[in-house]
Amino acid sequence: MRDAFHDELDAVRDTLIEMGRKVGIAMEFATTALLTADLAVAEKVISEDTQIDQMQHDLDAKTLTLLARQQPVAGDLRTLVTSLRMSADLERMGDLAHHIAKLARMRYPATAVPPELALTIQEMGKVAQRIIEKATTVIATHNLEAALQLEKDDDEMDKLHRKLFLTLLDDAWPHGIETAIDMTLLGRYYERCADHAVSVARRVYFLVTGEYASDQN
Amino acid sequence: MRDAFHDELDAVRDTLIEMGRKVGIAMEFATTALLTADLAVAEKVISEDTQIDQMQHDLDAKTLTLLARQQPVAGDLRTLVTSLRMSADLERMGDLAHHIAKLARMRYPATAVPPELALTIQEMGKVAQRIIEKATTVIATHNLEAALQLEKDDDEMDKLHRKLFLTLLDDAWPHGIETAIDMTLLGRYYERCADHAVSVARRVYFLVTGEYASDQN
Repeated sequence: MRDAFHDELDAVRDTLIEMGRKVGIAMEFATTALLTADLAVAEKVISEDTQIDQMQHDLDAKTLTLLARQQPVAGDLRTLVTSLRMSADLERMGDLAHHIAKLARMRYPATAVPPELALTIQEMGKVAQRIIEKATTVIATHNLEAALQLEKDDDEMDKLHRKLFLTLLDDAWPHGIETAIDMTLLGRYYERCADHAVSVARRVYFLVTGEYASDQN
Repeated sequence: MRDAFHDELDAVRDTLIEMGRKVGIAMEFATTALLTADLAVAEKVISEDTQIDQMQHDLDAKTLTLLARQQPVAGDLRTLVTSLRMSADLERMGDLAHHIAKLARMRYPATAVPPELALTIQEMGKVAQRIIEKATTVIATHNLEAALQLEKDDDEMDKLHRKLFLTLLDDAWPHGIETAIDMTLLGRYYERCADHAVSVARRVYFLVTGEYASDQN
């Protein structure tokens, strides 16, 4: 009975890893759709977000059933509770990729991002994708050193976010208010995605050590 | 032993209600600080957010201990798992009030919100406060009808959010990019706060019925 239960716990972790992979791909495609005004790619990200939502829904139902039936203690209990929290982070990260893809679709056939910000947004997309991949690896490996390193990627995201605002606030900004609004929201989506990835890594840290890595977001 | 446990469950609920009250007050004060450029009120919201964070931290630790020691099943298990999720929503709502207060502080001694948007932001603040109060009442009473009604307040918030964008996009908008960025972020903070309040109400619905009210955010 306990062996079957630990197989179930492995399956929970595998589903979280699969969610992480899907979110990473969604973020990569959303950024591509945004920078190249590719409507088909944007539509793909938008429609596939429901798969990520459904995965969270199913995983949480399964986790609740395991909590109720198996009455786990100590590490196993922490694994399941942490799983509920990580699935919520991952689902939200999927939503943010979905928001980015919707902006690409809304501005199509124009490119949502003006040339002055294309490189900054491209970098934000790359950092987001990297931090999602790292968070997914941390779920898979429970590597605490890797978990702590995500904070550095998050610092890089914050720098890019500030750079984005400086570009918008430059007197030479020629694109008016609507594009400034789009870019402000876009910057927030990427930044929040990175925050949630850091949150996932912190939850793994808690899962392994029983201690918080630092202040929780 | 079971009686003591149910006293503990009541205490968990009381703490969630207290968090909801604090978040409602934080949102009210943050909006006041914003609209009246009141630095002292802004500082108060900013410093008191750590209390809300600490409440979540302590409540989650207690909830985990109860899960581990009491091995609850069925309704009691659902109460504790839902508590973990509601505390996360409430903590995040506190963060959003904190962001609003920080914007008031950043623009002090100027008023962050220009006259054209003062009424819209005031309304967003009122709706946010009302929806937080309703969510808190739903936690206290488990009233399902009230839980479903929060969606209407959320619709009102979405309308105000659209109105805010229309004002920013009006050709006559005289305040330039920086204020447009501030207002875009501000709109997002209020809107997300309402989303989390709806999420709290949906979680109570799930707690009572075992069913989801509708698609989870």
